[in-house]
Amino acid sequence: MTYFDHAATGFPKSEAVLRAMTQAHRTLGNPGRSGHPPARMAEELVFSCRCRLAELFGSTPENVVLTPSATFALNLAIKGLYLPGSEVITSDLEHNAVVRPLHALRLAQEITMKQFHVDLASDEKTVENFSLCAGKHAAMAVVTHASNVCGRLLPLEKMRESVGREDFLLIADCSQTAGHIPIDIRKLGADVICIPGHKGLYGPMGTGALICNPDKELRFRTVIEGGSGTQSILTGMPESLPERLEAGTPNVCGIAGLCAAAKEFRYPREEGRLCEMLAEGLKSKRGVRIHGREDGGAYLPVVLFNLEGTDCETVAEALSAKGFAVRAGLHCAPTAHRALGTLETGGVRVSIGRGNTEEDVKRFLSAFV
Amino acid sequence: MTYFDHAATGFPKSEAVLRAMTQAHRTLGNPGRSGHPPARMAEELVFSCRCRLAELFGSTPENVVLTPSATFALNLAIKGLYLPGSEVITSDLEHNAVVRPLHALRLAQEITMKQFHVDLASDEKTVENFSLCAGKHAAMAVVTHASNVCGRLLPLEKMRESVGREDFLLIADCSQTAGHIPIDIRKLGADVICIPGHKGLYGPMGTGALICNPDKELRFRTVIEGGSGTQSILTGMPESLPERLEAGTPNVCGIAGLCAAAKEFRYPREEGRLCEMLAEGLKSKRGVRIHGREDGGAYLPVVLFNLEGTDCETVAEALSAKGFAVRAGLHCAPTAHRALGTLETGGVRVSIGRGNTEEDVKRFLSAFV
Repeated sequence: MTYFDHAATGFPKSEAVLRAMTQAHRTLGNPGRSGHPPARMAEELVFSCRCRLAELFGSTPENVVLTPSATFALNLAIKGLYLPGSEVITSDLEHNAVVRPLHALRLAQEITMKQFHVDLASDEKTVENFSLCAGKHAAMAVVTHASNVCGRLLPLEKMRESVGREDFLLIADCSQTAGHIPIDIRKLGADVICIPGHKGLYGPMGTGALICNPDKELRFRTVIEGGSGTQSILTGMPESLPERLEAGTPNVCGIAGLCAAAKEFRYPREEGRLCEMLAEGLKSKRGVRIHGREDGGAYLPVVLFNLEGTDCETVAEALSAKGFAVRAGLHCAPTAHRALGTLETGGVRVSIGRGNTEEDVKRFLSAFV
Repeated sequence: MTYFDHAATGFPKSEAVLRAMTQAHRTLGNPGRSGHPPARMAEELVFSCRCRLAELFGSTPENVVLTPSATFALNLAIKGLYLPGSEVITSDLEHNAVVRPLHALRLAQEITMKQFHVDLASDEKTVENFSLCAGKHAAMAVVTHASNVCGRLLPLEKMRESVGREDFLLIADCSQTAGHIPIDIRKLGADVICIPGHKGLYGPMGTGALICNPDKELRFRTVIEGGSGTQSILTGMPESLPERLEAGTPNVCGIAGLCAAAKEFRYPREEGRLCEMLAEGLKSKRGVRIHGREDGGAYLPVVLFNLEGTDCETVAEALSAKGFAVRAGLHCAPTAHRALGTLETGGVRVSIGRGNTEEDVKRFLSAFV
């Protein structure tokens, strides 16, 4: 099987990641909760994962909150930082991990929301749309760094710069970009980035992180409360990060795997080129229509397409039968599909990652008439 | 090292659990999100874990919500089910995973709270205390099935029976009991039980479940929203369980491990006896004071003690130096320590589990003068 579903989860994971998980499974206890060796070693492992992620994303260990997923990280960030009664802005390319928490807050009349349009033909126009949407009153933006549906990268840095106000918060959903392109949270201008451990970083599923900009002092409301190991006497969660946002026993094996993944990690060199090749090749195929891909825009290695006269699930099944793993449907992002004009049809998503080769792309293209 | 910290996490986990995680790591994709084999097999694995947990706890697969921990399960249950403006009752032996979410709701003026006293000398008195505390108005109780500090088992079944009202909800924190004693959610009279995967069941850390009574129709508010794989088009989470409470990519390796753990699982036979032996032996040691253990009460294999004139951390360190892993402090449960009179001192907790032997207990006892 040729795996072209890296935007859902990076696959295969490495044996080094498995070895780290194996060792954790055999030797580690519950971190931060006891003083004996299995507990202490677990605590060291967790800290070492924080350090490595801090290094990768330009933050500091105490600003790295380990979460069960990017979805949890986004929920903790959005619900932890919104200003009650304020306006929150977001793009029209968001995943449900952003759309649904915001919708829940809107339903509870905690926030109002405004959506800006990502102009695929012009990043300048996107920056302008963002700035106009933020206006003088929006308190926060929650924006994807790149679309999980069409791969389009958003000019977050310039977008943030376009809103001069110091107290304007930017939460970036880096689910698709973490591990694909270098991210420095300060340069990005984000207050918080939310990342999965299992996509571009090739760590295990069940891992993720909420990473704070070390230049900012953020005070989070808590969403999940429970045992924190330290400061047990408080009736609320401890004030300091990362403890404040990490209640309960963490996924120690997963964190061991993520730590190993982040240590062996190198930014990809070839995926963009392979994706260009695939997109170009697909364009020339009869009846294929590619969505959301415009010349001049920056893209992650993701292509969305449909085949005229055939629904996307049927195309994906036919590709699966030929040995290609792709994903059809709405990709948990109806908002983005609406913006791309594919809400009714869905689409077939091909996402390229580590291990994919030119040969894979050629075979894929030859699967089409 | 002799591991006596099973109440923090069961250790060691088995090689069968590791094998299941290894296979998951090497072969599985993101469940419920694509139609290709790695995704489909992952979905089957997740379903198989639900089935096994449903079987163990007397529920049905769709009523098994897989969570990252018991703490998350408790948060989802408490915040998902409380009636705004109502009174919630809870015991004086609770862990922070119950105390803190309730405190957060009280601070937000969403609920009022009342605490009842667990009478260690008499279960009948505990039932009476519970019933009086519930009175005619309390809408919900959130109660531990057994204390993580002193191991005392609460008579939940009789407690629930003592409150006749059909609409009175009982959420049981089974963090310490799941895997230690057989639990049938219907017989227990609970609407929801919250369990960790990694304690008595010996699954991996990073796993847990919220399990609903299949006779009840519960409508949960959501706490975490995000991609649900199915019904992506909705701006809220799907209505049906388990999808409603499972946003984002799950911990597939962890779930594979939990499923294997739950399959090989057998209820322990010896732990209670070993614990009795340990408690009896400790009693006769000079300066040892055991807390929260009364004749006639039912206990999980957990003993809390202090050594006169020495603080609990020093005792735990000395024991660690002699090769015994125990846990000193407040065990994330200051409420319970207050009830036991050990809030100022904390205590040393010895918790017995799979693999511990009579020999371990004897060696432990001989470590004392």
